[in-house]
Amino acid sequence: MKQQRIGKRTIRFRCPPSILAWSGIVGQKEGEGPLGSCFDRVGQDAMFGEKTWEAAESAMQKEAIETALKKGNIRKEDIDCIFAGDLLGQLIATSFGLADFSIPLFGVYGACSTMGESMGLAAMAVDGGYAQKAAAVTSSHFASAEKTFRFPLDYGNQRPLSATWTVTGSGAVIIGEYHPSGQRQVRITAMTAGRIVDYGIKDSMNMGACMAPAAADTLTAYLNDTGEDAESFDKIITGDLGYIGQKILIDLMRKKNIDISLQHTDCGIEIYDKETQDTHAGGSGCGCSAVTLTSWILPRMLSGEWRRVFFMPTGALLSPISFNEGQSVPGIAHGIVLEAGV
Amino acid sequence: MKQQRIGKRTIRFRCPPSILAWSGIVGQKEGEGPLGSCFDRVGQDAMFGEKTWEAAESAMQKEAIETALKKGNIRKEDIDCIFAGDLLGQLIATSFGLADFSIPLFGVYGACSTMGESMGLAAMAVDGGYAQKAAAVTSSHFASAEKTFRFPLDYGNQRPLSATWTVTGSGAVIIGEYHPSGQRQVRITAMTAGRIVDYGIKDSMNMGACMAPAAADTLTAYLNDTGEDAESFDKIITGDLGYIGQKILIDLMRKKNIDISLQHTDCGIEIYDKETQDTHAGGSGCGCSAVTLTSWILPRMLSGEWRRVFFMPTGALLSPISFNEGQSVPGIAHGIVLEAGV
Repeated sequence: MKQQRIGKRTIRFRCPPSILAWSGIVGQKEGEGPLGSCFDRVGQDAMFGEKTWEAAESAMQKEAIETALKKGNIRKEDIDCIFAGDLLGQLIATSFGLADFSIPLFGVYGACSTMGESMGLAAMAVDGGYAQKAAAVTSSHFASAEKTFRFPLDYGNQRPLSATWTVTGSGAVIIGEYHPSGQRQVRITAMTAGRIVDYGIKDSMNMGACMAPAAADTLTAYLNDTGEDAESFDKIITGDLGYIGQKILIDLMRKKNIDISLQHTDCGIEIYDKETQDTHAGGSGCGCSAVTLTSWILPRMLSGEWRRVFFMPTGALLSPISFNEGQSVPGIAHGIVLEAGV
Repeated sequence: MKQQRIGKRTIRFRCPPSILAWSGIVGQKEGEGPLGSCFDRVGQDAMFGEKTWEAAESAMQKEAIETALKKGNIRKEDIDCIFAGDLLGQLIATSFGLADFSIPLFGVYGACSTMGESMGLAAMAVDGGYAQKAAAVTSSHFASAEKTFRFPLDYGNQRPLSATWTVTGSGAVIIGEYHPSGQRQVRITAMTAGRIVDYGIKDSMNMGACMAPAAADTLTAYLNDTGEDAESFDKIITGDLGYIGQKILIDLMRKKNIDISLQHTDCGIEIYDKETQDTHAGGSGCGCSAVTLTSWILPRMLSGEWRRVFFMPTGALLSPISFNEGQSVPGIAHGIVLEAGV
C-alpha cells in the first residue's frame, strides 16, 4: 500500500472523503448565543427528557446521529461504524447514547479534541476502504462536566475569569466516499494527529493556556510537513481555546514567525456572547467544536464564503484524580483539513 | 478505493500487517500465576517506583512500549502513531504514561476490549498506508480499578465469587508493514468491530455475564460474514469473560448450533490459578488480554503450536456514575484474526 503520509505527522487522503450530512443539537444557553439560529435543535431545558444529566447527554448524541441521518437521507443500516466519545469517565454518554443503533462502535477519547480524532479516524476508515460510510459524534454537557471536573452546580461556586463554560451539545457528521454531484461539498483532505504537549500548567480553571501549546505544535507540524503557509487557509479554527488560549496560540505561532491572527478563530469564542452570556473565557467541551463545525463552519464552506479551513479541536488531558494527585494538565490537538468544492 | 469489507461487519486487510514486536509488563500477583515466567517483567510491588496507583499504571504503559521497541530493535522515532487506552476516567494512565514519547496519540476506549480496538485501528492505519509502524498499548491496575469501579482496597470488602480480579499489567504491540523474512511471523488478517450489546444485566460484580452476549454477537458476525466455521481457528480466545462468562458464551453459541467448546479459552482464565490465587471468576481489565496476548498467545503462534487465532477482547461499558444511576452494564467485543506464517 502506497504511503499516504507527508512529512512526519501528516496524512493526505488519496480520495478525500466527503462529509455527507451533519447535525448540531444544543442546550438552551447555546441557543441564546450568536449561533442560536444555526442549530438543528435547541433543547427547552438541560434534561432532554431524561432524569439525569448523563442520560440527557446520551439523548443528545442519539438525536445528533438521527438528525444527521435524516437530513442526509441516509439509513442507519448504511453506517458501517461510529467513532464517538465524550468527556465523562468511561465514555458513558456515548455508550448509553449509541447502544440502540446496533452499529459497530469505536470509542475514542481525546478530551475536547475528540471530534478531530473521531473525524480523522472515520476519514481513514472510509478512504482506506474499511467503511463506506462512517459517523463521528461527540458530546458534552455543562452540568455533567461540572459535576465530573469541578464542583456540583448546587455549590454555586465562583468561576474565575479564565474558566471556560462547557457547551451543552452534540454534533454528528456522516463521512462517506466522494461522489461528484455537481453540488458544492466539503471533503476531508488531510489530517495531522496530535501528540501530548505538556507545559506543566496545573490550573484546571485555565484550560486555554493548557491546550494552546498543543494547538501550536499540531499546526506547526502540518505547515512544516506540507510546506504550506497559514495563508493557504481561509480560516484556522481551534476547538475551545477561548480568549486566553487564542492569545497564547497567536503568540506562540508568532515566535515561529507565523502570523495567524487574521485567519484564526475558535469555536469557544464564536458560540457564546462574552458580554451578555457571562461565559468568561469562552466555550469548551467536545460538543463545542462539534456543534460549531456542523452549524456554523460547514454551512459557511458550502455557501462559498470559505473554501479551505484547518479545523483543530483541542483537548485538556486531565481527570479529577490526576488533578487532585497534583498532576499537570497536558494538551492535545488534532488537525483536520476541510476543503469545499464540487 | 476498493472496499475491504466482507459481509456487514468484517474487514479483511489487503496486505495484512505484521506484529513486529511486543511486550508484557505485570504486577507481582500475575507473576505468581501460571504465565509468570512468560512476562517481560514482573514488578516487585504494585507501585512500579511511583507514588500513586495511577502513576504506577502509567509507568507500566511506558515500560511496555519501551520494552517492545527494544525487543524489536525499533526506534521510537519510527512509530507514526500510538493507539492506546485504559480503564481510568479520562484515560489518565495513558496520557501520563505516553506523554514523553512525543508520538501522535489516538486515545481509545472500549473498556476491557480496548486492546482489540487499538490493534484493529493500528492495523487499519498501517494497511491503509497512513502509518508505517503503529503501536497499540493498554493497561489496567488492580488497585486503581478497584478504587474507580468498586471499593477502595482499605475497606477490605468481600468479593462475590462471580467477581473477576483486575489484572495489573500493560501489554504493547508494534504493528507494521509485512515484509517476508523467512522467519515465522504473526499477521493481523481481519477484524470484526464490536457493537454494544445490552442484555440489561446490572450486576457489576458479574461482568462475565454482562460481556458474554457481546462476544457471541461479534464471533457470530465474523463467522456469518466470512462463511468460515469455528473449526477454522486453532483457538478462539476472549479477553476477560472468566469462568462464568465462558460458560455463557459457549451456551449462547451452542444455541446458534456453533460449538466452540474445544477451541475456546479466555485470557482471564489462563492468567491466574483459580485454586491457589483466590481470583474467583478469573482475571479482567484491559491489561489482561494485552499481556496474555503478548506473553502467551503470540509466542505459541510463533512456535508453531497454533496457526490461526480469533483474539477477542471483551469490555463492560459501565462507569461508577452509570452504575449508581441504575443503568445496566452493556458489553462490547472487538475480534481480531491472527495468523502465523512466514
